[in-house]
Amino acid sequence: MNTSFNIVPIGYVLKKNESTRIEIDHEYTEALEGLNGFSHIIVLYWFDKNDTQGKRNIRKVHPRKNPSNPLTGVFATHSPVRPNLIALSYCKNLGVEKNIIHIDEIDAYDNTPVIDIKAYIPMDKLIKEDVTVPDWV
Amino acid sequence: MNTSFNIVPIGYVLKKNESTRIEIDHEYTEALEGLNGFSHIIVLYWFDKNDTQGKRNIRKVHPRKNPSNPLTGVFATHSPVRPNLIALSYCKNLGVEKNIIHIDEIDAYDNTPVIDIKAYIPMDKLIKEDVTVPDWV
Repeated sequence: MNTSFNIVPIGYVLKKNESTRIEIDHEYTEALEGLNGFSHIIVLYWFDKNDTQGKRNIRKVHPRKNPSNPLTGVFATHSPVRPNLIALSYCKNLGVEKNIIHIDEIDAYDNTPVIDIKAYIPMDKLIKEDVTVPDWV
Repeated sequence: MNTSFNIVPIGYVLKKNESTRIEIDHEYTEALEGLNGFSHIIVLYWFDKNDTQGKRNIRKVHPRKNPSNPLTGVFATHSPVRPNLIALSYCKNLGVEKNIIHIDEIDAYDNTPVIDIKAYIPMDKLIKEDVTVPDWV
């Protein structure tokens, strides 16, 4: 199928004066109502610096750019090169003021486009089995 | 800024004969290498049935479609109506065979487009503070 979908930035990561925040575009301010009830949030953002067909075509990487980690498919990593450049971080919510979410930290550059915010609900409610991961993690 | 980004399906959710699997397009099979080392995966998919401007413009919902839950901004929920229609599920990885990921279950319709797969790394390594959520959760 020759489908594709359109993603728009809903805001941007701003890192200034040692503070980190997400500034949501004013048209979405209402969508933040109730977020202050959550101590943590899931932030989805876009690896915009890697948005080239060449990088989107990369299928395997050495995780964490460490050559001693085994060459691994990008879907088995959180690599910033992948077919759709979606990044996922869990952040501490330090408080929402109007269209600003103050967070503790995020592994993203200043001005990175944010594409979604979701409430963080602890995984122990969702995943009951033992979790296993490879040695490189 | 008048930016937008392009997302392509990397595969589809298939629910048949009581089995649930994700069929990845053959061009991405290599990107699954190493995924079998993870017991759980993060699946990002697209709420394609809600991809209308009207639904993307909804800013508040009653979580879980329960009118007794307080009207809440979509970014404080996992609602299937939101500006960018990205869904997130944590799934048990029952095994990867070529381009097929067998999973236990997923709250998605048959034929839903999948847009990214990420290794699941337990949150307790990432989130050390106490987590709080509103009463409706």
